[in-house]
Amino acid sequence: MAATRQWQLASRPVGEPTHDNFELVTVDRPEPGPGEVLVKTLYQSVDPYMRGRMRDAESYAEPWDVGDPMKASVVGEVLESEAETFEPGDIVTGDLLWAEHAVADADELQRVDPDLGPISTAVGVLGMPGVTAYWGLRDICDPAPGDTVFVSAAAGAVGSVVGQLAQLSGARVVGTAGSDAKVEWLTEDLGFDAAINYKTEDDLYGAVAEACPNGIDAYFDNVGGEITDAVWMQLNEFSRVAVCGQIALYNETEVPMGPRKLTTLIETRATVEGFLVSDYQNRWGDALRRLSQFIQQGDLEYRENVVEGFENAPDAFLGLFEGENIGKQLVKVGEREH
Amino acid sequence: MAATRQWQLASRPVGEPTHDNFELVTVDRPEPGPGEVLVKTLYQSVDPYMRGRMRDAESYAEPWDVGDPMKASVVGEVLESEAETFEPGDIVTGDLLWAEHAVADADELQRVDPDLGPISTAVGVLGMPGVTAYWGLRDICDPAPGDTVFVSAAAGAVGSVVGQLAQLSGARVVGTAGSDAKVEWLTEDLGFDAAINYKTEDDLYGAVAEACPNGIDAYFDNVGGEITDAVWMQLNEFSRVAVCGQIALYNETEVPMGPRKLTTLIETRATVEGFLVSDYQNRWGDALRRLSQFIQQGDLEYRENVVEGFENAPDAFLGLFEGENIGKQLVKVGEREH
Repeated sequence: MAATRQWQLASRPVGEPTHDNFELVTVDRPEPGPGEVLVKTLYQSVDPYMRGRMRDAESYAEPWDVGDPMKASVVGEVLESEAETFEPGDIVTGDLLWAEHAVADADELQRVDPDLGPISTAVGVLGMPGVTAYWGLRDICDPAPGDTVFVSAAAGAVGSVVGQLAQLSGARVVGTAGSDAKVEWLTEDLGFDAAINYKTEDDLYGAVAEACPNGIDAYFDNVGGEITDAVWMQLNEFSRVAVCGQIALYNETEVPMGPRKLTTLIETRATVEGFLVSDYQNRWGDALRRLSQFIQQGDLEYRENVVEGFENAPDAFLGLFEGENIGKQLVKVGEREH
Repeated sequence: MAATRQWQLASRPVGEPTHDNFELVTVDRPEPGPGEVLVKTLYQSVDPYMRGRMRDAESYAEPWDVGDPMKASVVGEVLESEAETFEPGDIVTGDLLWAEHAVADADELQRVDPDLGPISTAVGVLGMPGVTAYWGLRDICDPAPGDTVFVSAAAGAVGSVVGQLAQLSGARVVGTAGSDAKVEWLTEDLGFDAAINYKTEDDLYGAVAEACPNGIDAYFDNVGGEITDAVWMQLNEFSRVAVCGQIALYNETEVPMGPRKLTTLIETRATVEGFLVSDYQNRWGDALRRLSQFIQQGDLEYRENVVEGFENAPDAFLGLFEGENIGKQLVKVGEREH
């Protein structure tokens, strides 16, 4: 019987995840049953939300069990099919495993349209991160010409799309990122009006205020913590805050403390709204169609940070918390066979 | 020339306000110019938001100047009129002064309709606090049958109206208050499903969870601080939080710290919205009409805590921060002359 490899959760992290939390295990390659297909992983996604699933606590995501393979969005190739809807060679995406091969119910896979873009984008700008940016910005931040839109983790998979979509809406766009290279990409290539390197900036409050002389009308929050504190200080009347992620807090071992700022919401009559992209299933296609259009028009750039080799998947994941990735963080797992 | 008395801001409080911050001053009674009226104060309101105006900091309310008379909502009697719209003996309400008499532009006064209720209610259940409760609840909390609505400072001028209106919408209602007498009023007289004395409760988190076995669908937040922390732990998916006041924080001298809880908003997709009743000027009359109807139908009870004597106005105000008032805190300043 053929073998395959998968990454299993070896232990739950305390604070920052480490390599000890992951174990690479060789197992029998599974065989598809009726209605199922065998998928070979070509690209595997790593995402900040996965940190929550490594935790044994109630969250919007079911926690992973220790000793089980971990889950991930994957772009893969159908190798064997016991379903009428797919045949070998088809490129699909779905929520599969940190694994070189996995079996999935055909109903839970989506066909990837290579005309929309490179297939890797199906877990990036034309996948969950892109749709997250699209609907979070449109539905909650509601940018308009003349607005200032602020986005944290602006050089990430979600943030970089948010910023460019906000520009297309006519807004002024400012963001934070964790390196000078990212700041340069944002301001020089993507045309952000300003960007702040939060790691080297001594006075974050002052820097945000200076970069937003007319205040902030909408904030797309991927990060939380002190960046969010500084942004809230500049919120305008009737501003909108979309809470998408709080990566600055995910590795905290104690309940993180910060200044109480709800009085700001009274003064500004601001709205703060949490959201999950899974609530936009019925509008997923609308977002993909628009994102693809913007890419083809040259209005939307994206970058992918591809780590080569399945054995390096934990490195790719851990790098998310170091702010290493510009754009979408991916693992190149295998090559197409057909 | 006739004299009158007014309370002036003697100094800005540091932390909790004290009597030293107020000075009772006798001044010449002002005379109305063209288009103005002289109003004798019958009832003066004291409200938590006034703490913000004693501060020399940017807020939604202009700070008061040291040495100036302080401002307040007042129910008064027109003694002299140089305006066509009012004549002596008319009962009016408006934003006047902590003063026995004041002159106001006739355009800035509203006539009080005694058929709606006792005239004192024009600064209470049929005034700013009632309208605050009505639109904050309706517009943001949006209660429905089957929902659990939580309200902090539930025995106060705003909170007690919020709770009863939520009941009229068919919701289960739970609140916090600062004495056993208040808890009894809420549960025995107003029919709250549960109420918590936050001052004597050792385990606030546990008490809120126990009182809300199906979680919380809407939270009307008058208080902030630890009560709000405990409530956020129980927020349901797609719940709504109206931020009306944060009285627990108003006397803090340092930036108050607390647990960072924005991740809760992602998990629940909750919305948190600050509001000011001044944004509902164009719907003020709608609220008054409904509130008056509910009172006349016996569906809406209210209480007023009337401190007698203008010289005791600071005591009435300071009592707000001790949680002394059940219902609307008022000062009885003078008697009608006509």
